[in-house]
Amino acid sequence: MEAAGKVDGRVERGDRTRQQILDAAVDIASVEGLEGLSIGRLALRLEMSKSGLFAAFGSKEELQLATVDHAAAIFIEQVVRRGMTAPRGLPRLWSLCESKLEYMQREVFRGGCFFAAASAEFDGRPGAVRERIAGHMKSWVELLAGAVRRAQDEGHLQADIDPAQLAFEIDSLAQGANWAYQLFGDRISFDRARRATKARLDAAAARPLPKSDPRRPRRKPAANRR
Amino acid sequence: MEAAGKVDGRVERGDRTRQQILDAAVDIASVEGLEGLSIGRLALRLEMSKSGLFAAFGSKEELQLATVDHAAAIFIEQVVRRGMTAPRGLPRLWSLCESKLEYMQREVFRGGCFFAAASAEFDGRPGAVRERIAGHMKSWVELLAGAVRRAQDEGHLQADIDPAQLAFEIDSLAQGANWAYQLFGDRISFDRARRATKARLDAAAARPLPKSDPRRPRRKPAANRR
Repeated sequence: MEAAGKVDGRVERGDRTRQQILDAAVDIASVEGLEGLSIGRLALRLEMSKSGLFAAFGSKEELQLATVDHAAAIFIEQVVRRGMTAPRGLPRLWSLCESKLEYMQREVFRGGCFFAAASAEFDGRPGAVRERIAGHMKSWVELLAGAVRRAQDEGHLQADIDPAQLAFEIDSLAQGANWAYQLFGDRISFDRARRATKARLDAAAARPLPKSDPRRPRRKPAANRR
Repeated sequence: MEAAGKVDGRVERGDRTRQQILDAAVDIASVEGLEGLSIGRLALRLEMSKSGLFAAFGSKEELQLATVDHAAAIFIEQVVRRGMTAPRGLPRLWSLCESKLEYMQREVFRGGCFFAAASAEFDGRPGAVRERIAGHMKSWVELLAGAVRRAQDEGHLQADIDPAQLAFEIDSLAQGANWAYQLFGDRISFDRARRATKARLDAAAARPLPKSDPRRPRRKPAANRR
């Protein structure tokens, strides 16, 4: 038992160190890019030996892949999980949009949206890192389109709307806000994205059915929709 | 006269060489980023001596600034000038949106929109290059907002619309299309951006006035609006 405890302790310490390394890696990459993330640069920042980092990650590409996955885990925690706590249908769709805007505005990553920066940096560089970034972003875009579909199933959004089209539009607004904020320091762009997203979802909302109609969706309180 | 002709010839040759150098620089930077644009890298591509390039640009930063300005000149030629040929008001606003989408879709720059890539790369790096990129993009955003204002003056768009808000929305759609195309190879995103821009401008259009009303704008033929 004692031996197992010791091993567990070591594993835990190892995991903690790995988390700390990857937190620093994500922080560097969000400002300077994934290519700026050398093992030497990271060793300097963490005051660790380069050989220790090499032992943990093996190569720059492995470090980049682990950094992208770590950023994805933070994105899921801060955007997806937060968004998914809202009641299903339109409130949840709105909450996902709002969570992404908040994540960009709060600068969960120091350089703004990690994946906006990483996409722009790697979209022209074929390879494993590019595929990993694209895979995470594909999941996000599909999650958003799925949330549109579920809002249609709930009777909150018009049934003839193309979920991929609407998901594209609202995610573009968030990306535009992140771009303007990062380049111009223009905080008002988040208000603009919120206003436009709200207007777009209002326009896509199902026409209200008479109170007696059994298809009438239970409307969620305004607090969820802002 | 002959001497002047010789000098002119030399100046012309010098300008042509500079243009060729900058064409190559923009091409490299649009795929690999402005930081990947070293004088050594460029000398290799152009089969020129590094010392010749140093003489022409002095430093990596000067080369980056000249590259950004060269990309801006191409952007103005391909997007702004093309867009501005349409009749003023709503047709011109639509034409500017369409020109930007076409420029992204045709990949005037091999890596998609030069400024989308350059913004993401430099927004976290304070300095002259970042300021130059932001300056060019500020001009574009203001040009778009100005086109909205002129469409309002012409009576084509509702007078109470905030030009900066509408410009933000339609430019975000173009940026979202460029992002999806570059990352997923998803050409359909340009159709999505076109559809959404058209719908947004239709929703913003001034309600038609009776034929007898002198404020009634002369409507442009459908070909200009697609």
